[in-house]
Amino acid sequence: MNTSTPFHFAQRAARIKPSIIREILNLADRPGVISLAGGLPSPNSFPVQAMRDATERVLRDAPQQALQYASTEGFGPLREWVAADLGTQGIQVDASKVLITTGSQQGLDLVGKVLIDPGSQVAVEAPTYVGALQAFNPYEPTYLSVAGDDEGPLVAGLEAARHARFLYMVPNFQNRGGRSISDTRRDELAARAQQLNLPLVEDNPYGDLWFDEPPPRPIAARWQDGTVYLGSFSKILAPGLRLGYVVAPTSIMPKLVQAKQAADLHTPIFNQRLVHEVIRNGFLDEHVPTIRSLYKAQRDAMLAALQRHMPASCRWTVPGGGMFFWVELPPGIDALAMLPQAVEQGVAYVPGGAFFADNSMRNVMRLSFVTVPAEQIDQGIATLARVLREAQDPSIRLAA
Amino acid sequence: MNTSTPFHFAQRAARIKPSIIREILNLADRPGVISLAGGLPSPNSFPVQAMRDATERVLRDAPQQALQYASTEGFGPLREWVAADLGTQGIQVDASKVLITTGSQQGLDLVGKVLIDPGSQVAVEAPTYVGALQAFNPYEPTYLSVAGDDEGPLVAGLEAARHARFLYMVPNFQNRGGRSISDTRRDELAARAQQLNLPLVEDNPYGDLWFDEPPPRPIAARWQDGTVYLGSFSKILAPGLRLGYVVAPTSIMPKLVQAKQAADLHTPIFNQRLVHEVIRNGFLDEHVPTIRSLYKAQRDAMLAALQRHMPASCRWTVPGGGMFFWVELPPGIDALAMLPQAVEQGVAYVPGGAFFADNSMRNVMRLSFVTVPAEQIDQGIATLARVLREAQDPSIRLAA
Repeated sequence: MNTSTPFHFAQRAARIKPSIIREILNLADRPGVISLAGGLPSPNSFPVQAMRDATERVLRDAPQQALQYASTEGFGPLREWVAADLGTQGIQVDASKVLITTGSQQGLDLVGKVLIDPGSQVAVEAPTYVGALQAFNPYEPTYLSVAGDDEGPLVAGLEAARHARFLYMVPNFQNRGGRSISDTRRDELAARAQQLNLPLVEDNPYGDLWFDEPPPRPIAARWQDGTVYLGSFSKILAPGLRLGYVVAPTSIMPKLVQAKQAADLHTPIFNQRLVHEVIRNGFLDEHVPTIRSLYKAQRDAMLAALQRHMPASCRWTVPGGGMFFWVELPPGIDALAMLPQAVEQGVAYVPGGAFFADNSMRNVMRLSFVTVPAEQIDQGIATLARVLREAQDPSIRLAA
Repeated sequence: MNTSTPFHFAQRAARIKPSIIREILNLADRPGVISLAGGLPSPNSFPVQAMRDATERVLRDAPQQALQYASTEGFGPLREWVAADLGTQGIQVDASKVLITTGSQQGLDLVGKVLIDPGSQVAVEAPTYVGALQAFNPYEPTYLSVAGDDEGPLVAGLEAARHARFLYMVPNFQNRGGRSISDTRRDELAARAQQLNLPLVEDNPYGDLWFDEPPPRPIAARWQDGTVYLGSFSKILAPGLRLGYVVAPTSIMPKLVQAKQAADLHTPIFNQRLVHEVIRNGFLDEHVPTIRSLYKAQRDAMLAALQRHMPASCRWTVPGGGMFFWVELPPGIDALAMLPQAVEQGVAYVPGGAFFADNSMRNVMRLSFVTVPAEQIDQGIATLARVLREAQDPSIRLAA
C-alpha cells in the first residue's frame, strides 16, 4: 500500500502558477484595506435593472433554449451583434468569424493552445497583461519583450520577433503609463508584421472606456488576415457573466472552435441570451457613456490625490481612458517588496514588475481608479505616499 | 507582401478535432429528423419557475456580487453545498477540496492540462466518454483501453495500465450496454489502483439519474487520495448554465485551481449564485425524483419500441438509469457508415465506434431516450429498424 501521492504532473504544470494579482487581491481582501489593486469594474456601473428585465424576458420567451446545451460557436444573434459592432470600428467580419468565449481570458487560453508549442517564442509589449502571460504559460513559450516608446511598441523591434508565433498587444490604455498605441504606429506595426509574416493578437478589453476621444481603429482592421482580435463584455456590462469573444481569420477559426469545444463545450447560453437581450436595442449607446463619465471623474479624483500626496520623485501619465494609472517610483524602490508594508497600513496595489515578461522594471505600480469611490481613492493614495516616504528612508529601504 | 496565412499551428492542434457527436447533432438538426443522438436532457425537466424566482432573488439581494469578478475556486456556499452532498455519498471532503468548473467538460480539460504530457498513457474504459477523449487529446496522450465485463473494467487489466497517468472511468450508466460498475468491482478497482499507484479520474454526470436503486457509492469514496471526482449540474438542473465541479486531493488541487484561473479566471458567479439559490433549501430532493420518473417512463417507451421494431439480430441491455440504450448490431454492420441513410430517412443516433479509444467496435449505436418524447421515440426506432433491415440486405450493405 502506497501512501504518497500517486499523481505525476505534466511538465507544463511547472509553468502553471498562481497569479500575483489574484494573490494580492486575496491579501487585500480584509477590512480596512483600500484596494487599488484589482481591475474590478465599479459595481455602480452594473446595469442591474436592465439585467433583471432581460432575465425575465429570456426565461419567459425562450426558457428551454436558454437552459439547454447550445452550439460551441455561440448564440447566433449575439455573434451577429458583435460582427456588426466591429464593423463600426472598421473590422469587416460576418458572424462566422466570431467565437463567443467564457470571458476573453478563455480566448487567450485557446489562442495559446492552438498556436504555442513548448519553446515557441511569443512576443509581448513591456508592460503587457499579466493574465495573458498566465494563459500562455502552460503552453511553455519563451517570451520576447518588444521595446516601446510613448506611441507603442517600436516597429524596429518586430524584426527580432519574426520567428515568434505571434505578437500579443493590448492597444488601448494598458501600455507604458496607461497610454494607447497611436494611429500611425498601428499602421506601421500592421504593415511591418505583414511583411514579416508575424501574426498579431490584439486584446481590447478597455477600448470603449475612453474619456476624451475614442482610440484609433483596431490593428485588426489594418491586417485582418493576420490578426486575432479579442473583446469582452466584462468592462462595459459585468465581468461576473464571463462573456468575451474572439474574432479570427478563417485559417485558424475551426481549430479555435474545436479547442473551445474540448475546453467547455460552449459558453453558458443563458448568459449569452441574457446579454444579447440587454444590448440588442442599443442599450450600450446610453450605458457606456455613463461608465465613461463615472470613470473619468474617478480618474480625476486619483490624479488630484496623486498630485496632492505623492512625493515629487514619482512620475505618471494621465490615462485617457481605461482603469489604471501607472506610477513610476524612484529607481531604487521595489514595488513588490514594498507591498506588505502598504497592505499593513491599509492600501493595496499591483506591483508593475508582474507585467514585464522580462522582469525588467520593478519600480512601478499599477493603480486602479475605478473600483473604489473617490473619497477612498484620496485616502488610499495618502496612505500609499506615506508608505513610500518610509520606504525611501534608507533604514527601512534596506530592511525591505 | 505575403498573402498566405501567417499562422503556424502548435503540434497539439493536429489532435484538436471536431467532435463526431457535435457533427451529428448539426447533421440531425433539420426538420423531420428525430434525433436519438445527443445527450440533451429533456427540456421538460428544466425547473424554469425555480430559476426565475432564484434569479429575481439573486439580482435583488446581491446584484453587485453576482455581477462582479469572483474567486477562481468558486462561490463558497456552493462549494460547501457540494461538499455536504458528497458527504452523503461517502466522499468526506470540506469545501476547500471542491473547485467549481464551467461544466464538467472543463474539469476534464484541467485534469488533462495538469497531468498529461505528450506521449503519456491514459487508460480508459471501452466504451468511454467521447467528450473526455476530446478534452484529453490536445495534451497528446496515447490511450490504453482496459477490457471490461458486465461489472466494469477488469481488475486484471490495471496491471498493463500501471504507468498510465490515470485511469478515466464513468462509473454509472455509461459502460458496456449502459451498465454501471458494480459495488464489488469498485472495491477491487480502488484497491488494485492504490497498490499500483495508478490515479483514478471518476466522472459522474449520470449518478443521480437512477430508476430502481441508487448506484453503489463512488470509487472516490474508496480511495480519496488517489481519485479525482467530477460532478455536474447539467443533468439534474440545466446544462445551459455550464456548472460542474471537480473534487481533488490536496496534492493536485492548487495546480487545478491555477490552471482554471489561467483558463477563464472563474466560472460565472451569476450562474453559481443562481444555482445555489435554487438548490440551497432542498429543491433537488423533490426535483430529481421527477426527472427520474420522466426518464424511466421514456426508457420504458424506448424499450417497448426496440422490442416492437428491431430485428432479432440486435441486442441491448435495459439501462437502470442514465440517458442511453447501447444497441449492438449484427457484426457486419458499421453504425457510422449507416448513419447517412438513417438521417436521410429521418432518424439520428451516435455510432458507438467513437466511444472506443481503440476503435475496436463499430457495430454499436448509442440511443438517447431522454431528449424526444415517447411518441417520437417509437417513430424513431421504427425508422431505425427499417434502415437496419435495408442495411442487412446484402446489396445495400456492400454499397454502404
